[in-house]
Amino acid sequence: MSGSGELENLDRIFDKLAVEDQIQVKRILYGTNVKSLDLPEAKDIAKTYNIEIAGYHFMGKSEHLRAPRLVRIGAFQNKLPLPPTTPITDQRNALYKLAENAISIAAQAKVNIFCFQEAWNMPFAFCTREKQPWCEYAESAESGPTTKFLQELARQHNMVIINSILERDEIHGDVMWNTSVVIDNHGDVLGKHRKNHIPRVGDFNESMYYMEGNTGHPVFETEFGKIAINICYGRHHPLNWLMFGINGAEIVFNPSATIGNLSEPLWGIEARNAAIANGYFTVAINRVGTEVYPMEDTLKNFGHFYGSNYVTAPDGSRTPGFSRTKDGLLVAEFDLNTCRQVRDHWGFQMTQRLDLYARSLQNAIKPDFVPQIIRK
Amino acid sequence: MSGSGELENLDRIFDKLAVEDQIQVKRILYGTNVKSLDLPEAKDIAKTYNIEIAGYHFMGKSEHLRAPRLVRIGAFQNKLPLPPTTPITDQRNALYKLAENAISIAAQAKVNIFCFQEAWNMPFAFCTREKQPWCEYAESAESGPTTKFLQELARQHNMVIINSILERDEIHGDVMWNTSVVIDNHGDVLGKHRKNHIPRVGDFNESMYYMEGNTGHPVFETEFGKIAINICYGRHHPLNWLMFGINGAEIVFNPSATIGNLSEPLWGIEARNAAIANGYFTVAINRVGTEVYPMEDTLKNFGHFYGSNYVTAPDGSRTPGFSRTKDGLLVAEFDLNTCRQVRDHWGFQMTQRLDLYARSLQNAIKPDFVPQIIRK
Repeated sequence: MSGSGELENLDRIFDKLAVEDQIQVKRILYGTNVKSLDLPEAKDIAKTYNIEIAGYHFMGKSEHLRAPRLVRIGAFQNKLPLPPTTPITDQRNALYKLAENAISIAAQAKVNIFCFQEAWNMPFAFCTREKQPWCEYAESAESGPTTKFLQELARQHNMVIINSILERDEIHGDVMWNTSVVIDNHGDVLGKHRKNHIPRVGDFNESMYYMEGNTGHPVFETEFGKIAINICYGRHHPLNWLMFGINGAEIVFNPSATIGNLSEPLWGIEARNAAIANGYFTVAINRVGTEVYPMEDTLKNFGHFYGSNYVTAPDGSRTPGFSRTKDGLLVAEFDLNTCRQVRDHWGFQMTQRLDLYARSLQNAIKPDFVPQIIRK
Repeated sequence: MSGSGELENLDRIFDKLAVEDQIQVKRILYGTNVKSLDLPEAKDIAKTYNIEIAGYHFMGKSEHLRAPRLVRIGAFQNKLPLPPTTPITDQRNALYKLAENAISIAAQAKVNIFCFQEAWNMPFAFCTREKQPWCEYAESAESGPTTKFLQELARQHNMVIINSILERDEIHGDVMWNTSVVIDNHGDVLGKHRKNHIPRVGDFNESMYYMEGNTGHPVFETEFGKIAINICYGRHHPLNWLMFGINGAEIVFNPSATIGNLSEPLWGIEARNAAIANGYFTVAINRVGTEVYPMEDTLKNFGHFYGSNYVTAPDGSRTPGFSRTKDGLLVAEFDLNTCRQVRDHWGFQMTQRLDLYARSLQNAIKPDFVPQIIRK
């Protein structure tokens, strides 16, 4: 347990087991294709910034006709450096400073693609259902201050950066969206994706703020591979994952903000299942810590964001537990050729019978749909 | 480790941890809504038959307008009682005897719906790619000896029995199918389902024996709830799970036969993800042990079938590890009202945008489909 009373990392419990038991637990829970990746310089910097870091390498197989396509991703999870009760400008500046530190660690770790958690540049204030002052954080995806700030860092470090923000679309009636902006390694905005599925669960009724996204399932062709972003609650939707795969994604990032009581037993399942079913790598990223809001003359705490970033390969192997309580950068290196190798091995795409399901869904959405039920 | 050198049960490792650590591990890995179910009489009989038994109860919530709809399922995993080298008739008789024992234990445990593993009444000989003598096991779904044998037991014990066999369709050219027959609690054949997705993976090239099923995604309305069967390799296909849900399934059984080196890190993920995404209970059942075949004047072993049956509720909570090496009956009791309660809570069905995906899939299956890729 950490000082907050929260378990720090599931794997610290497994560390208490005998080595032969650990091997069995990790084989069954995590698969066998993940090794540690040594990142000595990055570790030194991370220590000075008080950011946890862990690196993993997924074992690849060489091919005769294709060279390996190694890529390193960085998945950053963080707490708010300042509480939501402090002035908005101070909060954002503190988050920018933290981001700069995290990206400098990632650069030292030779990360090619860096991804933040959902709505990283603000408190996760959607739980409050108050519009202001929180919507002051909303900004243009293409030319807002956060995108501009990260474009400079992307250029400087030759790094693709996925920037998940509350978007304000001034051209179309000032409406807001939950959006991920892809900034390429030259500092240019390659495009954006708007969250497809919006939760209405307990305190997470985000439909107060933004509607279901209208950007389809774009895959962004970067110099380091074809990537897509399945934002937070979209991870509960297998069809959302499926369409990113059909459009050619090799890595799908899942920037999230979710709390322990709501979703923790689901966390290790959904992004991992998506990697298996669709033959791509998935990167699950979650916010950390508790956020206490000044509401109705009192303070409200919506629960503990449990971090626990992890990466899954198409063969189902995954990185072990990551911090549940601390700011942290999870680095993973893998060969994108693995995607096709695993698809060839398992044949899920070949055997998926998409034509059958295209027909079935066309039928299912009809108002007079009759389910296939067999009665006596 | 058991005598076979195989780990007996993942949870026996967790048992070595301190109690407070076990609580954390189980909360994160399994969720918190599962309690032990006491089955004293059934346990006594199970002991005499040398069959492992475990019972669990999923915590439900009461409603004002609907009475609880409690159901007990039994998921039976087993080794071959006699090796594939013995005469076919002896093998089948020994399996029938084992089935009779297992069903009598289930009756004592007040099981309403009993499900066998895939192709339970024969060795999993599809790995051999030899047609004979193995195809002698194929039989009519409606009137073959195995169905007749189980009809009598279903009637006797007022129990629905899911009977997964190699089907021979004599009316349509003698072709074979991988089929689950649903026998209702009055002993009548309610219907059948043929495996929708056929593996072509390593030694599991079952397409030698049968083609992709032509029975759609039927849901069988029994006196104990609406059930469906996703046979083995179909668990890798989220769309297959989806359609059973759309057709109204409350419990989906996944009778399987899969080995450790191929699939074990995926086993705990896929059926569980399906329960979460679709708001129904899933029951994953796997064969046990090794099967050694006389091939080309020698013996061939295709690997260890690792059992590990488990049940998942729509909220993602699941039963803990079950035996990896022994014949076993996993009993679970739950309230079918949970399905709608969880759907109301999470809203996955309300937010799933089926119309969007019906259009997307119609588009994706076109030969001239252009993926949504954003390039500079």
